[in-house]
Amino acid sequence: MESTPHSRAPEISVTYMISHANPEKIAAEIALEQTVEMPRAAVSNEQILSEITGRIISVEKHEGSGFIATICYPASVSNFEIPQFLNLLYGNISFKPGIRIVGLDLPEEFLMSFKGPRFGVGGIRKLLGVFDRPLVSTALKPMGSTAEDLAHMCYRFALGGIDIIKDDHGLADFPFCPFRDRVAACMHAINRAKRETGKKTLYFPNITGRFEKIVDDVDFAVSEGVGGILISPFLVGLDCVRHIAENETIGKPVMSHPAFCGSLFSSAGTGIAPEIVLGTLFRLIGVDSSVYPNYGGRFSFTKETCSLIAASLRGHLGHMRPALPTPAGGIDLKNITDVVHFYGNDIILLIGGSLYGRPGSLEDSARFFCDKVTEAAKNRRYTTEGSE
Amino acid sequence: MESTPHSRAPEISVTYMISHANPEKIAAEIALEQTVEMPRAAVSNEQILSEITGRIISVEKHEGSGFIATICYPASVSNFEIPQFLNLLYGNISFKPGIRIVGLDLPEEFLMSFKGPRFGVGGIRKLLGVFDRPLVSTALKPMGSTAEDLAHMCYRFALGGIDIIKDDHGLADFPFCPFRDRVAACMHAINRAKRETGKKTLYFPNITGRFEKIVDDVDFAVSEGVGGILISPFLVGLDCVRHIAENETIGKPVMSHPAFCGSLFSSAGTGIAPEIVLGTLFRLIGVDSSVYPNYGGRFSFTKETCSLIAASLRGHLGHMRPALPTPAGGIDLKNITDVVHFYGNDIILLIGGSLYGRPGSLEDSARFFCDKVTEAAKNRRYTTEGSE
Repeated sequence: MESTPHSRAPEISVTYMISHANPEKIAAEIALEQTVEMPRAAVSNEQILSEITGRIISVEKHEGSGFIATICYPASVSNFEIPQFLNLLYGNISFKPGIRIVGLDLPEEFLMSFKGPRFGVGGIRKLLGVFDRPLVSTALKPMGSTAEDLAHMCYRFALGGIDIIKDDHGLADFPFCPFRDRVAACMHAINRAKRETGKKTLYFPNITGRFEKIVDDVDFAVSEGVGGILISPFLVGLDCVRHIAENETIGKPVMSHPAFCGSLFSSAGTGIAPEIVLGTLFRLIGVDSSVYPNYGGRFSFTKETCSLIAASLRGHLGHMRPALPTPAGGIDLKNITDVVHFYGNDIILLIGGSLYGRPGSLEDSARFFCDKVTEAAKNRRYTTEGSE
Repeated sequence: MESTPHSRAPEISVTYMISHANPEKIAAEIALEQTVEMPRAAVSNEQILSEITGRIISVEKHEGSGFIATICYPASVSNFEIPQFLNLLYGNISFKPGIRIVGLDLPEEFLMSFKGPRFGVGGIRKLLGVFDRPLVSTALKPMGSTAEDLAHMCYRFALGGIDIIKDDHGLADFPFCPFRDRVAACMHAINRAKRETGKKTLYFPNITGRFEKIVDDVDFAVSEGVGGILISPFLVGLDCVRHIAENETIGKPVMSHPAFCGSLFSSAGTGIAPEIVLGTLFRLIGVDSSVYPNYGGRFSFTKETCSLIAASLRGHLGHMRPALPTPAGGIDLKNITDVVHFYGNDIILLIGGSLYGRPGSLEDSARFFCDKVTEAAKNRRYTTEGSE
């Protein structure tokens, strides 16, 4: 990489996979499209051309097909804010075929504008007092259940030893299961179980209200003593999540659900690489635990993608705490050993359906799940696949 | 379509294109995945199965390839709120390959929970006093210009007769061009031009601040007398736009920019049809004018897609006012006649780059643009391609 001219530092570096016959031309168009939105010839001001538009670092043939281009943008063009950062990354070019974002390098000056995960791996472990195994999580469902039904499941799961019990991300403030009733009932259930077993369990209600009400919902949940919150950045807006995660008076762990963003990943030649969205971007907005579809489940990520997501959540990102990969989406109880060996200990294992589908009580299923994880962690060998 | 059982009305009907060998199985999975998120066998409560999960209406072979399936969901499952509605539509299935949303039918009970466009076609025409031709719009750019530079362009464009002058959607609250300075300077420019020509021009600043600041920014813009706002739903969050559009004390037209949502349209077999997102969904959140890439420009929509988007914005949608299709994205001045004949009069024609790229003053270019539109509207024949 060339040395950065004094006038342009710091820069955000974006790497694109370009599936076009003339990648240099496309790269030049991207550098303009994502900033000045004008053809080069129409920009009369030379200073703007040199200080605002993207700077093409390299365009190279990709092994396999297509090309890899890296463009650096002045970090100031993001205005150090999520909405404009999203626009700089993938605003207009989301409409251009054959362009995929495959790499992102953020300078310290940019990262320092965001707090990142408040708790991260260490913080959530400390809240639970669990340090030597993957954390264990399940979801309250199905939609249609009453607050009392869900609280009863919550109690059973807590008795069974689950660390984090979250709402299903489709549980809104339904008349048949009002948000406040649900939160109060589930917290009552959690506290009751704790009195009986002494084991700490965190309850994460789903936050999905209207713009004008969403922070009130979080405040209510915090006042009830919830352990954290579940939120879907692509349903409520990424900067809404950033605001909630960074808010001092809230101060709770944030678990993200990836609902609605799958089409960013559905085509190999367009979109944004999953590890950038569900890893870097979510960590930037303060996500402590990022839920994503695990390999081999009912969705479509490969082992390689899952490994990259985990690395992006736990690896170095400026001053930011590592976040917890939270594989989910149809993990079967019998695959737990494999999953734990693959990721290592610093994950949250989220299993919903498999627990409900199992014969016996929810408490028994939960205990079986927890025992399996503890056992897998004990027997785990450091494999070359794992990130540790 | 079957008659709706008494217990389930009203329903939201979603039509999917399914590219799988076993479409009935996929449809059954969708009906569960988007509601209870559990396998059918794991849902022990029969009432939940009948009252909450999707009801498969039909699965039919599609002309060409794949299948078309229609599933009805109880409207209550959306909780009549945007985040959960997005989740119901395309939350988890965004991660499943081979499923595309191609149709959406919303019951009156659902639509009544939203105000829709406050101004719409008629309201914006009335604000401008222009009834007999397409409206004419341009963008202030490039990023990197100062507030004074942009205000000067704004003045020139207003003198040239532009109806709506909007910020480029990448103009954030930059230190080199602060939002408040820009709004004040542009409003000063607009008012000065109006005193000179008597012609009304509306200025739409770009709203893209942080969650906690975004409504304050709008309030400031309103206090300065702006004509409306430009906002990107997929950058700031769709429910943020709904809140701003519905807010009585704001009460200004909303122009949407489609930044960041292109990957919903990039694959023929997944995502959501553009006319549903840029038409129905945007109208639902209160968009009066929906900017989208026109056919033949530097992006990739076909004439057919553009026609469907326009129909979705202007056609019947319960109590909602028709909104203004706002084709943009590299429309050339020499194609104006074609574009006006294609869409008819009820559009906003948005041209940015072509005006800046033209020799001569911005004022002359604007006047040339406006004259071209007026002339095209006068000569327009009702064509079979157009929507009128």
